[in-house]
Amino acid sequence: MARDLTIAVCQTGPIQKSAQRAETVDRLVALLERAAAAGAEIAVFPELALTTFFPRWRIDDEAEIEAFFEPAMPGPQTQRLYDAAARLKMGFALGYAELTREDGVTRRFNTMDLVGQDGKLVGRYRKIHVPGSSEPEPGTTVHLERRYFEPGNLGFPVFAYRGVRFGMAICNDRRWPETYRMLCLNGAEIVLIGYNTPLLLDEAPALAHLRMFHNHLPMQAGAYQNTVWVAAAAKAGVEDGQALIGGSCIIAPTGEIAAQAMSLDDEVIVHRADLDLIAICRKVNFDFARYRRPDQYRLIADQV
Amino acid sequence: MARDLTIAVCQTGPIQKSAQRAETVDRLVALLERAAAAGAEIAVFPELALTTFFPRWRIDDEAEIEAFFEPAMPGPQTQRLYDAAARLKMGFALGYAELTREDGVTRRFNTMDLVGQDGKLVGRYRKIHVPGSSEPEPGTTVHLERRYFEPGNLGFPVFAYRGVRFGMAICNDRRWPETYRMLCLNGAEIVLIGYNTPLLLDEAPALAHLRMFHNHLPMQAGAYQNTVWVAAAAKAGVEDGQALIGGSCIIAPTGEIAAQAMSLDDEVIVHRADLDLIAICRKVNFDFARYRRPDQYRLIADQV
Repeated sequence: MARDLTIAVCQTGPIQKSAQRAETVDRLVALLERAAAAGAEIAVFPELALTTFFPRWRIDDEAEIEAFFEPAMPGPQTQRLYDAAARLKMGFALGYAELTREDGVTRRFNTMDLVGQDGKLVGRYRKIHVPGSSEPEPGTTVHLERRYFEPGNLGFPVFAYRGVRFGMAICNDRRWPETYRMLCLNGAEIVLIGYNTPLLLDEAPALAHLRMFHNHLPMQAGAYQNTVWVAAAAKAGVEDGQALIGGSCIIAPTGEIAAQAMSLDDEVIVHRADLDLIAICRKVNFDFARYRRPDQYRLIADQV
Repeated sequence: MARDLTIAVCQTGPIQKSAQRAETVDRLVALLERAAAAGAEIAVFPELALTTFFPRWRIDDEAEIEAFFEPAMPGPQTQRLYDAAARLKMGFALGYAELTREDGVTRRFNTMDLVGQDGKLVGRYRKIHVPGSSEPEPGTTVHLERRYFEPGNLGFPVFAYRGVRFGMAICNDRRWPETYRMLCLNGAEIVLIGYNTPLLLDEAPALAHLRMFHNHLPMQAGAYQNTVWVAAAAKAGVEDGQALIGGSCIIAPTGEIAAQAMSLDDEVIVHRADLDLIAICRKVNFDFARYRRPDQYRLIADQV
């Protein structure tokens, strides 16, 4: 019996600082409707899909910072997206800035939720590889993500939904081979990714033409080396003066790009993913039980 | 002060079973001379560069098996290659079948030696990821490498030569992200690889057209994600009736292919590798001390 799942990647164009949250949610709902019309059963949205990529700025005013965060999901402004998912009978993964109180302490994470069509949380991932710094570093494009987010504390979890095992990763996570390997060892079949990636690199201008190659290369290798499907959604276009790359894509366990966004705007790409391809690809080179040598990999878990 | 090293990859065409070892060494010497003429300071030869890829056969006769192995390096038949390196003032890495006696026990490894221009061993690597099986598996292209070789017992060592730090990997090793990561954590700047890779896949004929993509993808990702140079030498062409892919290449720390062989025959490709590119690439995304999260990677070293 063939197993498949139709995946949608909902890329967004820029979400300017001036955009009202309601207007942004309207765009996400419209994307979800397009995905459903194309037969999708699950959709993935970008990292920080509800706001501009605010870590590009140093902000000191606490109220101004908190306005970028969601204290509850769904909240009054995002409920409509959850309602749309129920109406369209599809799940989605959404990146957002999470504000939570744990043991009386306020904590902030760069988070992605996997939500079922019943509007219930299937699973939550908090970004492990938080790049950037907490203070500006002049002459670089290093942003201030570490000022606003602490590193994720939920590991690399995998969640079952519609009989398929999903992992999630956020932006910089996708560059590290350990991300895919951890998700694969935890049983992932599909990895959902959201990202915001600047086009320009002040610290290495000679490498700027490689930004899209460096977007796809680690995801394609991650898919191939772990025999997983990867579905990755960019926030793209010029957002508050900063150019972000697009290149949202769906990658097969062969490492091939099965579908790719061709704009820097709101765009839906869809692919009916053959989940049986995972076992076929694994048989060829990656029979882990037979061939992996974890005793030889100690340093990977011991040394920065 | 700019640091660079000119690397040669010496791909070979097939080495038939009928070939005399002296004739094969002649070919390797000729390749080394071409590499030196192009200004190379180090050359890498394929896996099992002295013989046919004999693990494609089940052989029971011990003498017949041992004829494929080298009990000493250099030996009477390989000394000329070492002499050529001294004359040409260049080092080389050579894959071969190693026969050794340790504590009175005969052991066999799939090995690559890094040899200096003084003919002295700089360092030895024994293949960690030994694929295949020890008994034939009809209907597949699974070969019998595990019949003839035990897994390497030297870890993923890194050796200094000419002021540059070299790691080595052999064939199937190159498909695993852990190989590059271990070598990188051990300080490698250049990873030398040799391989023999069949073109056809009986167990997954629909994936056969991806063989070259699956050759380059993990090496390009390995180079990019670990900011190392990769130099990989194939044994190519139809060897004893089996088609082997070529695609020997030199890959920059950007993940880009800087040079690639265009034949399935004896061929030398050369690239003057800018070693400073390693630091530039690392600065952009891969400041390990700042961003790696080894405490989150435990499973990679604990679970097959």
